[in-house]
Amino acid sequence: MSKFLNSKYKSLEVYTPGEQPQDKKYIKLNTNESPYPPSKKVVEAVSVAEIENLRLYSDPECKRLRGAIAELYGVEAENVYLSNGSDDILNFAFMAFASDNSPAVFPEISYGFYKVFAELHGIPYKRIPLCEDFSISPSDYYNANGLVVIANPNAPTGLALTLSEVESIVASNPENVVLIDEAYVDFGAESAVALTKKYKNLLVVQTFSKSRSMAGARLGFAIADKGLIDDLNRIKYSTNPYNVNRLTLVAGEAAIKENGYYLENCKKVMDARAYAKAELEALGFLVLDSKANFLFAKSNRIGGEELYLKLKENGILVRHFKDEKIKDYNRITVGTKEDMRILVDTVKKLLEE
Amino acid sequence: MSKFLNSKYKSLEVYTPGEQPQDKKYIKLNTNESPYPPSKKVVEAVSVAEIENLRLYSDPECKRLRGAIAELYGVEAENVYLSNGSDDILNFAFMAFASDNSPAVFPEISYGFYKVFAELHGIPYKRIPLCEDFSISPSDYYNANGLVVIANPNAPTGLALTLSEVESIVASNPENVVLIDEAYVDFGAESAVALTKKYKNLLVVQTFSKSRSMAGARLGFAIADKGLIDDLNRIKYSTNPYNVNRLTLVAGEAAIKENGYYLENCKKVMDARAYAKAELEALGFLVLDSKANFLFAKSNRIGGEELYLKLKENGILVRHFKDEKIKDYNRITVGTKEDMRILVDTVKKLLEE
Repeated sequence: MSKFLNSKYKSLEVYTPGEQPQDKKYIKLNTNESPYPPSKKVVEAVSVAEIENLRLYSDPECKRLRGAIAELYGVEAENVYLSNGSDDILNFAFMAFASDNSPAVFPEISYGFYKVFAELHGIPYKRIPLCEDFSISPSDYYNANGLVVIANPNAPTGLALTLSEVESIVASNPENVVLIDEAYVDFGAESAVALTKKYKNLLVVQTFSKSRSMAGARLGFAIADKGLIDDLNRIKYSTNPYNVNRLTLVAGEAAIKENGYYLENCKKVMDARAYAKAELEALGFLVLDSKANFLFAKSNRIGGEELYLKLKENGILVRHFKDEKIKDYNRITVGTKEDMRILVDTVKKLLEE
Repeated sequence: MSKFLNSKYKSLEVYTPGEQPQDKKYIKLNTNESPYPPSKKVVEAVSVAEIENLRLYSDPECKRLRGAIAELYGVEAENVYLSNGSDDILNFAFMAFASDNSPAVFPEISYGFYKVFAELHGIPYKRIPLCEDFSISPSDYYNANGLVVIANPNAPTGLALTLSEVESIVASNPENVVLIDEAYVDFGAESAVALTKKYKNLLVVQTFSKSRSMAGARLGFAIADKGLIDDLNRIKYSTNPYNVNRLTLVAGEAAIKENGYYLENCKKVMDARAYAKAELEALGFLVLDSKANFLFAKSNRIGGEELYLKLKENGILVRHFKDEKIKDYNRITVGTKEDMRILVDTVKKLLEE
């Protein structure tokens, strides 16, 4: 830290991304990436001609990709906002829709970045405990008097609210924005996108990082009433108008047009998830009912951190969080069925040691 | 705008990027892009294997590209920060290094975004008038008591400070950060990068958008003492840790390793600039002594806006700013010599009409 740093940022506790060790090749089940590559059309879309065109700025309005997303999701292009990964949208939403009079309200156990955004912008926030079984109680978010932020499915639990539960939260907060972070929605949960036509206060955020195999391309999108999209654009045009690069724009458009490929991949991940859940349960694990591309699981025979470390020694990376309430668990990304077989066999071996 | 928007953002005057009309094909001399494509190695670097790897997150530490830039510029990797275009660095610098007690100080006529950043973050700012000849007087920035931000060469004038003038500003501000925005430095101005070893308060910002033909890839970098780089990272890890995408990282690394190609392109642009300047002067234009890849020019025979509009009718886009003090001028990106010939011929024709 330099002596020049604005004092309000001096005590920031930053977000810690999942580790990316370079010492050897791991089976990487720690950052919820897809085990499948982008579709062939995506690879073709990033053509030599497009690379040569990198000399030109990208379209700040991202018209083509916004149009493609709008068509797929049955909304208008004016209801779609794009960004350099969905974290940028979350960040802008905390800036735009929370304030001293409108604190951010989110679950105590959820995506760790929500707290970081609130602290970065000096916004008061209220973290609401989960229920005993790690589920979210919708009524805790009724009449919230502030920006409501809920990951659905939630992370790292994987548990999802039903669409009617989400709607009950949105409907009870007509004076607040409700942000539903659907990063993992394509793996079996219900999306709230259709509700954006009914509720002007609903901001649905999704990403190409998980179900669409494009974590490294950095592409997130929001769907909402035009008013909220205009607000996000106001922040964007005050920070970085060309926020999405050209290659990601063409890759994203190709991905949207080959939706079937990604739906099949999601199905495969869901099958591998069911397999791994059953196998871990057979080994005595408690495994939450995940609707995401990860499992949140604990054993009564081995501690959370110990399992994480031993798996790492054995070439498998999973994510362990040290927070007291979840320290017995690990978040295990669902890879291919083969990845899951190796995981289960390794866990079995470790439990027998 | 929605009713939910935080009131402090309601009156923001956002930045207006250069127009990107889609109605016909223009000779595009309005956003200072390079007329030359990225090098062959850049095209090769964005390989099928790299596109398939988009399923994985990019390296949040951007180690390889930071290492390559450090080597080229004779600094250490810890002195290099990368971002999704250099606007993101400018934005973070306004957040990190200005405050109520440390206002932002920049020239009245300069990159229009500086004012936008200050207003976005509610930071007081002071705009210092240029001299009569549009040059910057270094002593105006001595003991500034705030974050000093200077584009060198300045935009849209193209005029550059010498290295010793820059050093005099940095040396006189030991308690303030001095940000030198070198977006256009490769077209004939002197870079202050070497001074970052001597001054802990100097932040040099550059971009791959102009001299390196990668505007559409979104890649900016800063070079500074480790303290300032750590501060930028603190903001980055509180907003978007994976801020640069995978393909841009490999493209950037390839570009750095083929520096000679880009130096040659800069030389060609500088030759075309000299040609266009001489021709416009022969037509009676006042043309500032640009060290950037654009010319700032006015005619006493045709108004600035009129020339802009007539050029557009004739298929040539240049950038006109409506600010009172510069409304007689146009900023004309320097393209290929052929582009410049067409420009000059068109201007000649318009003056004869």
